[in-house]
Amino acid sequence: MLKIRRNERIAAMTRILCSHPNQSYTLQHFSDLFNSGKSTVCEDIAIIRDSLLAFKLGDLETTAGAGGGVRFVPLADMDRTRKYIRELCLTLSDSNRILPGGYLYMNDILHSPQQIHRIGEILAARFLDLKPDFILTVETKGTPVAIMTAFELGCPVVVASRNGLLTEGPLVSINYVSASSQRIQTMSLSKRSVREGSRALIIDDFMKGGGTVKGMIQLLKEFNVEIAGTGVVIATRQPREKMVSDYTALMVLEEVNEEENRVKLSPADWICSV
Amino acid sequence: MLKIRRNERIAAMTRILCSHPNQSYTLQHFSDLFNSGKSTVCEDIAIIRDSLLAFKLGDLETTAGAGGGVRFVPLADMDRTRKYIRELCLTLSDSNRILPGGYLYMNDILHSPQQIHRIGEILAARFLDLKPDFILTVETKGTPVAIMTAFELGCPVVVASRNGLLTEGPLVSINYVSASSQRIQTMSLSKRSVREGSRALIIDDFMKGGGTVKGMIQLLKEFNVEIAGTGVVIATRQPREKMVSDYTALMVLEEVNEEENRVKLSPADWICSV
Repeated sequence: MLKIRRNERIAAMTRILCSHPNQSYTLQHFSDLFNSGKSTVCEDIAIIRDSLLAFKLGDLETTAGAGGGVRFVPLADMDRTRKYIRELCLTLSDSNRILPGGYLYMNDILHSPQQIHRIGEILAARFLDLKPDFILTVETKGTPVAIMTAFELGCPVVVASRNGLLTEGPLVSINYVSASSQRIQTMSLSKRSVREGSRALIIDDFMKGGGTVKGMIQLLKEFNVEIAGTGVVIATRQPREKMVSDYTALMVLEEVNEEENRVKLSPADWICSV
Repeated sequence: MLKIRRNERIAAMTRILCSHPNQSYTLQHFSDLFNSGKSTVCEDIAIIRDSLLAFKLGDLETTAGAGGGVRFVPLADMDRTRKYIRELCLTLSDSNRILPGGYLYMNDILHSPQQIHRIGEILAARFLDLKPDFILTVETKGTPVAIMTAFELGCPVVVASRNGLLTEGPLVSINYVSASSQRIQTMSLSKRSVREGSRALIIDDFMKGGGTVKGMIQLLKEFNVEIAGTGVVIATRQPREKMVSDYTALMVLEEVNEEENRVKLSPADWICSV
């Protein structure tokens, strides 16, 4: 068998680890793949780790012991995050995006895999330490962001439904009041999709009054699920008093003024201040 | 400035390229990042490429000239694909997944970022040569798979809506007949989300009669969009005559027999035969 050089091992290992964030691989896995000793694999890991840290591209975490292994942990460099979120605010603060009724067109961002991959990396880095068992979101616009955040965290996603689709089996449903529309709505979660006693991270695209997130919190209580945190891509400045107080937004929608054709978003405080 | 070793450059470059599939980076980008000459960067790229190809983990494509650069192209190794799809068929062929009405519970798969990342890699590799400008899907269950496939292809996603949401601006809507339910339904696409004359790849999670995909094809015609191809995760064996003939499925749902508590999926022919 041909000997595989260190350079080649490093390229292959980096590809495997970085394409599967927060998923653990045993040293044996790489040892078998490269037909090399575990000590060699450990040296490779150390080199990759140093390089990722030096260029602020993430980290490798190793765990010792029989079930030990290595996994890639995406870290969001704050300088790059700030620059990215500032640019995104500028992109979104475009009066051509104002839709009738004072809505903001942002599907091009929320459905761009490249943009939401980036957003997911930032949210994942922010919530990494909370170690959620799964991410909860509600259909439909929040799903892509939730998926990408969960991809980075290495955990599954559970999607609450707004109408109770047939193909999910028995459901638990709650009624909640949307703070913005003041209308009663229904939100359901498939019984088999959530494990009692686990920890959830709530992710959504947009928060105005906070009614939807409050609905998700209520729904999780029915499953005895602990809420590790809540992250949204955009929160509106008004109303200041939202139905939930503990959440992290990436951007703040300061105003959408349809009459004066003006829209303004700014980065959330925690992004500016770091 | 500290000299960066080849090992370290290779780790950092592999991370950057593999985390952004089909997105082009200039040689200058890496030359600046590492403070090294372009010829050195080219040598690094050659090493990474050889390693990715040797371990069937993907490819690097370089383009020459002023606007030249390098991008990571994910390739799905057919042996691993076949093994993965076989295992997925076994996982799904579990009678506990049968829901009232003969539906199949598969949200745990369709909302698992790790599973749909894998599925997206396979679909992307299958449709890579068609070079679509964007992926079209219809809300809601197909969205995650579409997002991950587009992430791998490096293209955006456009999501057709089933009810015409307010926040997308002016819409083009069509009525279509769902082959399975024989009911008339509406599907809409935001006018600003699609560029006339571009090429679309249609991605959805499930195909029974093909009515939904036919609806998407109809909708795209209104935008003068060429259809590059259609990919679905699961197609049912029956009816054999679907409303669209040209599509690629990963798995075939042979039967769901609620009375006899039996469900069977098998890999699509093209996966078995390669």
